[in-house]
Amino acid sequence: MLKTAILLIDCPDRKGIVAAIANFLVHHDANILHADQHQDIDLALFFMRVEFTLDDTRCSEQHFRSTFAPLAEEFQMDWRLNYTDVPQNVAIFVSSYLHCLADLLHRQQTGEFNCNLSLIISNHPSAQALADFHQVPFHYLPVTASTKAYVEAKQLELLAANSIDLVVLARYMQVLSPQFVNAYPRRIINVHHSFLPAFTGARPYHAAFARGVKLIGATSHYVTEVLDEGPIIEQDVVRVSQNDQLSGLMQKGRDLERLVLSRAVRWHLGHRILCYANKTVVFT
Amino acid sequence: MLKTAILLIDCPDRKGIVAAIANFLVHHDANILHADQHQDIDLALFFMRVEFTLDDTRCSEQHFRSTFAPLAEEFQMDWRLNYTDVPQNVAIFVSSYLHCLADLLHRQQTGEFNCNLSLIISNHPSAQALADFHQVPFHYLPVTASTKAYVEAKQLELLAANSIDLVVLARYMQVLSPQFVNAYPRRIINVHHSFLPAFTGARPYHAAFARGVKLIGATSHYVTEVLDEGPIIEQDVVRVSQNDQLSGLMQKGRDLERLVLSRAVRWHLGHRILCYANKTVVFT
Amino acid sequence: MLKTAILLIDCPDRKGIVAAIANFLVHHDANILHADQHQDIDLALFFMRVEFTLDDTRCSEQHFRSTFAPLAEEFQMDWRLNYTDVPQNVAIFVSSYLHCLADLLHRQQTGEFNCNLSLIISNHPSAQALADFHQVPFHYLPVTASTKAYVEAKQLELLAANSIDLVVLARYMQVLSPQFVNAYPRRIINVHHSFLPAFTGARPYHAAFARGVKLIGATSHYVTEVLDEGPIIEQDVVRVSQNDQLSGLMQKGRDLERLVLSRAVRWHLGHRILCYANKTVVFT
Amino acid sequence: MLKTAILLIDCPDRKGIVAAIANFLVHHDANILHADQHQDIDLALFFMRVEFTLDDTRCSEQHFRSTFAPLAEEFQMDWRLNYTDVPQNVAIFVSSYLHCLADLLHRQQTGEFNCNLSLIISNHPSAQALADFHQVPFHYLPVTASTKAYVEAKQLELLAANSIDLVVLARYMQVLSPQFVNAYPRRIINVHHSFLPAFTGARPYHAAFARGVKLIGATSHYVTEVLDEGPIIEQDVVRVSQNDQLSGLMQKGRDLERLVLSRAVRWHLGHRILCYANKTVVFT
Repeated sequence: MLKTAILLIDCPDRKGIVAAIANFLVHHDANILHADQHQDIDLALFFMRVEFTLDDTRCSEQHFRSTFAPLAEEFQMDWRLNYTDVPQNVAIFVSSYLHCLADLLHRQQTGEFNCNLSLIISNHPSAQALADFHQVPFHYLPVTASTKAYVEAKQLELLAANSIDLVVLARYMQVLSPQFVNAYPRRIINVHHSFLPAFTGARPYHAAFARGVKLIGATSHYVTEVLDEGPIIEQDVVRVSQNDQLSGLMQKGRDLERLVLSRAVRWHLGHRILCYANKTVVFT
Repeated sequence: MLKTAILLIDCPDRKGIVAAIANFLVHHDANILHADQHQDIDLALFFMRVEFTLDDTRCSEQHFRSTFAPLAEEFQMDWRLNYTDVPQNVAIFVSSYLHCLADLLHRQQTGEFNCNLSLIISNHPSAQALADFHQVPFHYLPVTASTKAYVEAKQLELLAANSIDLVVLARYMQVLSPQFVNAYPRRIINVHHSFLPAFTGARPYHAAFARGVKLIGATSHYVTEVLDEGPIIEQDVVRVSQNDQLSGLMQKGRDLERLVLSRAVRWHLGHRILCYANKTVVFT
Repeated sequence: MLKTAILLIDCPDRKGIVAAIANFLVHHDANILHADQHQDIDLALFFMRVEFTLDDTRCSEQHFRSTFAPLAEEFQMDWRLNYTDVPQNVAIFVSSYLHCLADLLHRQQTGEFNCNLSLIISNHPSAQALADFHQVPFHYLPVTASTKAYVEAKQLELLAANSIDLVVLARYMQVLSPQFVNAYPRRIINVHHSFLPAFTGARPYHAAFARGVKLIGATSHYVTEVLDEGPIIEQDVVRVSQNDQLSGLMQKGRDLERLVLSRAVRWHLGHRILCYANKTVVFT
Repeated sequence: MLKTAILLIDCPDRKGIVAAIANFLVHHDANILHADQHQDIDLALFFMRVEFTLDDTRCSEQHFRSTFAPLAEEFQMDWRLNYTDVPQNVAIFVSSYLHCLADLLHRQQTGEFNCNLSLIISNHPSAQALADFHQVPFHYLPVTASTKAYVEAKQLELLAANSIDLVVLARYMQVLSPQFVNAYPRRIINVHHSFLPAFTGARPYHAAFARGVKLIGATSHYVTEVLDEGPIIEQDVVRVSQNDQLSGLMQKGRDLERLVLSRAVRWHLGHRILCYANKTVVFT
């Protein structure tokens, strides 16, 4: 059977890498659909994404992995191989603002994402109806300062039980603990409602309004231990003026949040993102 | 003779302001060309810009001012009246990057600005040729830590001698002293090569590159005592990716700087900007 | 009771208009919240939008109308007065693409629109579930060449029975007859999936892809007898490249369509749009 | 000596292309700096740009060409090899609007372009001073209907005498004959002051203003026999509103024209553009 796979590579730059990979793929009779590469000249790093089809009966995933491993070792590659016929399992965390959740659910229905939406977790009950309408299991887990550790344990249990590959924080207004974050490195995507690094922390629209900026922004990024400091995946902005009061900023911002979060999710699910030096390389 | 004037008003909001101003203009037989107003509902403030023509022989500037004064007092207005047949005098400060200067000079030649470019002051000699080509007097005033106070005194002298109304910092890489800034309140416009408040201070492109942002920005603002904290006039951004190394950011940024600085200068010269609460109201 | 009203005015430009309106409002003790005006100097036209509060017990709507009428006549005004406590009734027409419908329904739920979503009409059954979830009455009216006249009559009946003020064509893929259009002049908003006037007619994404444009756009406009020629309300674009195949254009375009259609609907419902010379004046 | 070269390839897509090219480069000890590729899946076409350094003493240009030729033939490649130490010769054609010319000259001075500005040709004398300031030879060649053929012959002579590689029409308001265009296929870049294909032909700002668009655009493209129909290289837009009269559109448009034209010139000079199916592939 013809299968489509995506190979992501990250290694020190050195002569012959492209030739080695291309020869390997030719040798296994793979058909390249897309190939993108990036070199960081200063840091002497090489990044590649190759999407290809190959005949499963002639080269199984296991065979590919076992024959590629020595090559990868030779070039000191970090590498990931993913087959597109295995959709990833996604959990969405949300609080009381539902616009990003509603948007993600609609995009999933439209076929924009190659994933299973396995789980919605919220510290508010309000997303229940939306989850039901889209037939996604919903878990209401309220959080207080004293129950936070317990709730996180419960959340991690749900993620594990559902073999979750990606956690999307769709305006989830709780800060996750380092333990939680470290359990899903570069597999938790958050949307922050400002143009980072401007206006980190709480109430960024209030801060932007007070500063009198002429554009407001939104940022999607991987979550790391340090709040709002993870690798940025996507940002976008929209123009505001004196005609926009705080509520106007929030309304315009909601559209931005949906756009930057959905792009980040789509790119992550398409294995289009590589991270290094707290930055992302995005092959769009 | 028919003259065009611009009235800028800033006062507490209260019933009857618009009627009072409109009646005053009707009574003086003024013909409104453009009128814009803004209300800050939270702070109960009112802002207005009216551009109108009136017959100088029937209502001189002096007459307008003396009859408008009691009305302005009644409504506690801050107000400014400017006639467009009196171009403002502008001084440009520049260092070694000349792209903003070249842009401003070309726009002036094209007729985009209603002003006299009276003076170019630089701490580098490199702008001399461009100044000569455009026939704008050029003053080379190198600055060191020890001569800074002396140079600023000299600069202020030149500004005074040329009756300068507006100082444009077109990538002038020296920080002006509070004394200098306070001599020209809201009459010094700077361009900062980042999307403020992100990346204040020196080398913002380096900082943006290190942070891995997906858009870079530029900001034009009035200069206040606190570096990079003055009221923002205009901002714009452009998309960057992993394909843009630091030099690419700088190159794209230069285009942004020219755009946001030139807009700020044009709006200031057109009396389109009002300031309050460290923000600007821009009537475009 | 304190009520909020919006007055929209459109008349030949002439001295004294603003004073006359402002005096009228002062006299009726109205409190101006926002006022915007526009003058077309070439055509000598004047446009105004005033939003104000006034005490209903001291000045009823009827009283306002009867006292304003002579003033309006004197200045040859076209004028409309709307009270914000009377939400407009909106009907959405949709075909098989549901992204704009889903977006409008979510925005309505979020409180972005001041309206009643009274009716969804579709020539496909697929929107039924979404309509049910949002509890909006749904009418499935399939259309063929031979039934078109009959269906339009039925649609008009439904609009009349529900006192519809605004019809939104949310990717409704049927061309409405001139009779239908003329029954709701400037009260039918369409979204066209191109940057008009480029790529009018069917399959604009295909045409844009074939032409190799570097940006794709979407346009919301009032529907007139001539297809895709009505007054443009809003447009937006997004960058595309060789990496975007036709399906990529369509996917990016869906986001644009939602944005430009929702803005047009919000502005129309906020009485922010005036039309003249087949153009719109939008007071945002 | 270490030299930098750029290889552009365009051929039918087929297994093994990347491996063949990569192996060739490894074999000649080239060091890849950047590599980009694009596949048109529908048309089964493959495009590649490789920038690399190689030691001239070990592999001369002649040697590279002669050894690469058989490989190219095997894969039916159209290919171009350019060394970056050989700057291209550029001629700029301009009429009375000088903003694009001034911009290109300044960018050249800033080091943005790797080229010789060999020649400025104009049907108006007004660019003389600017050309002199930048020390670029200037030729004033006025055009009338009756002299057009003669002038084109003269222009072609000048291009030939200066070994011109690229002709940039920087708001040159004369239509070139098919003979002229065919003498420099895909080597003439024009800027059109609209978002093509909207508003082709003369006076696009007037047409955009009349249509009431909410964004105006500019387009840079290769010139072909059919006016405004050549492959689009770059487009950009800026928002306009009722506040922008025709002159405002023109002023905003000038900034767009400079941006889209300068990007096209930079990309062309960097050998970043491939054409097919009347479209461009741009490797930025």
